[in-house]
Amino acid sequence: MDMIKNIINGIQKNHNFLLTTHLSPDGDALGSIIALGLALEKLNKKVDYYIDPSIPEKFNFLPKIQNLSCNVLDKQYEIGIILDCGDINHLYDRTILKKCNTIINIDHHINNQNYGNMNYINSKAGATGEIIYEIIEFLGVELDHNISKALYTAIVTDTGNFKYSNVTSKTHYIVSELLRIPIDAWKINKKLFDEYPRSKIFLVKRAIDNLQFLLGGRLAIIVITQDDLKDIGCSPKEIEGIINIARNIIGVEVAILLKETASNEFKISFRSNEYVDVGEIALRLGGGGHSRASGCIMHGNRDEIISILKGIVEKKL
Amino acid sequence: MDMIKNIINGIQKNHNFLLTTHLSPDGDALGSIIALGLALEKLNKKVDYYIDPSIPEKFNFLPKIQNLSCNVLDKQYEIGIILDCGDINHLYDRTILKKCNTIINIDHHINNQNYGNMNYINSKAGATGEIIYEIIEFLGVELDHNISKALYTAIVTDTGNFKYSNVTSKTHYIVSELLRIPIDAWKINKKLFDEYPRSKIFLVKRAIDNLQFLLGGRLAIIVITQDDLKDIGCSPKEIEGIINIARNIIGVEVAILLKETASNEFKISFRSNEYVDVGEIALRLGGGGHSRASGCIMHGNRDEIISILKGIVEKKL
Repeated sequence: MDMIKNIINGIQKNHNFLLTTHLSPDGDALGSIIALGLALEKLNKKVDYYIDPSIPEKFNFLPKIQNLSCNVLDKQYEIGIILDCGDINHLYDRTILKKCNTIINIDHHINNQNYGNMNYINSKAGATGEIIYEIIEFLGVELDHNISKALYTAIVTDTGNFKYSNVTSKTHYIVSELLRIPIDAWKINKKLFDEYPRSKIFLVKRAIDNLQFLLGGRLAIIVITQDDLKDIGCSPKEIEGIINIARNIIGVEVAILLKETASNEFKISFRSNEYVDVGEIALRLGGGGHSRASGCIMHGNRDEIISILKGIVEKKL
Repeated sequence: MDMIKNIINGIQKNHNFLLTTHLSPDGDALGSIIALGLALEKLNKKVDYYIDPSIPEKFNFLPKIQNLSCNVLDKQYEIGIILDCGDINHLYDRTILKKCNTIINIDHHINNQNYGNMNYINSKAGATGEIIYEIIEFLGVELDHNISKALYTAIVTDTGNFKYSNVTSKTHYIVSELLRIPIDAWKINKKLFDEYPRSKIFLVKRAIDNLQFLLGGRLAIIVITQDDLKDIGCSPKEIEGIINIARNIIGVEVAILLKETASNEFKISFRSNEYVDVGEIALRLGGGGHSRASGCIMHGNRDEIISILKGIVEKKL
């Protein structure tokens, strides 16, 4: 709590801020930055936003979303605030570290490297947005329509629509406070989780066509080749979430997705449901991740790779 | 608020209770009844549960779920509490109306018929479970693991996992209170929303195979025949949710599902996204429902029916 007070103090007595986050910003990164930026602006601070412009279209409803990429060349800031970025190597642009007198690092990733001059890391928060809610409260800034929308987006995305095990009593408490302002949360929710282009449906069909059950149905594998994507007219980004088709089937313990990224090269994603540590499997194959969700790269033809993976998973079941 | 106090009073001064709900109980009905029943038992009341035994397997994790079907023959109760049942014709068994000296009707459906001796209807509640939370609080019963689990289930099912427009600040506030008790909400959530038998996946594939886009992609239709179900080895119940495959596609305003129930007989479901009042369409065809979700029965062959529906929808777009 002392650290959060120091951060509040640092914010209060400075005027020039740069807000940034990790590459390929997600809903939590975007929502957190926008909410904090709006709150700072309400305190008459000068705020620049500096974000990787590759923002998925579905976030277009967010306030300020078109104005988050500034030119930082020849600029210097009193405070740089880096949000939701655990690994400094994933920062959008490391040159900002020299452009800011003080770096404040605010995050909820458990393995955050504490690279800031001030670091507030709360790994019990389901989203960085939850921490930003607290900071805004400490700053004495009242929630408004735009801030609530941004924070709702941050929290709902990083908790998988309140589904993940990172959701706590506090998560729902904060959302109940946000929804005191009528923000049509269901519309945001629909946009983020329940809208997809037609091609996604045909990708789902292809994934089911390619679905294999091995080891008595406890291992389910989906392969998506470059030809599949070309046939369907899908971008590789649309593969997000496809692995859950396999994971959610009753009886499946391990789900694996092989995404062909080049000839004889596959990006492999692993998910497990109850007990297999797929983080360990990915690590052994040169990748990484968590016990229930991990990934790696493998080379070879698909049948060879599937055979290797089958062998590894079999020993874990 | 007076009515809720009368009800609390009625509960406090009586001893013998029968709790019941509508036919084919859903998560809100089950969770509400179990939570209220457990609370009454904590107050040393005698509680009988009387529920349509056709309970979907996914609710098996709920406390008391195996003990909800009692024999009410030759019994008489001081109080019968009917939960989550707007229409008395949907009550599991109307004979109980004579077996209870007083009927308390607690519900959140806006069109509730006020058929009880005491009626507490709050259509602003996202689930009957939200009302039961309040009643338990009024009764002064502390939440415990089983009550929290039951109420979480009630609320999460009737709000579509916090997605629907019936979710309010209060919904999240109540859930934040429930989650003060460690109930592994994510496991309940997974069981209710993210687990399906293998056959469901093949039904999804068949639905996509059968998907038709009409009227420039603004109308999407899925047909599921009895042969489809037979081929796949699916029960008709698994069709639940399939219509959303069509509804969620960007550009679709109206989604229609034709479920063949007999030769030349189809159960038709309608969904819309933004502006078409599908309640009106269903009503005109002898069915009913809401402006964004409705249904009816139609007779004829599928192509004729599709052609009729296309004509009706075209005028509304």
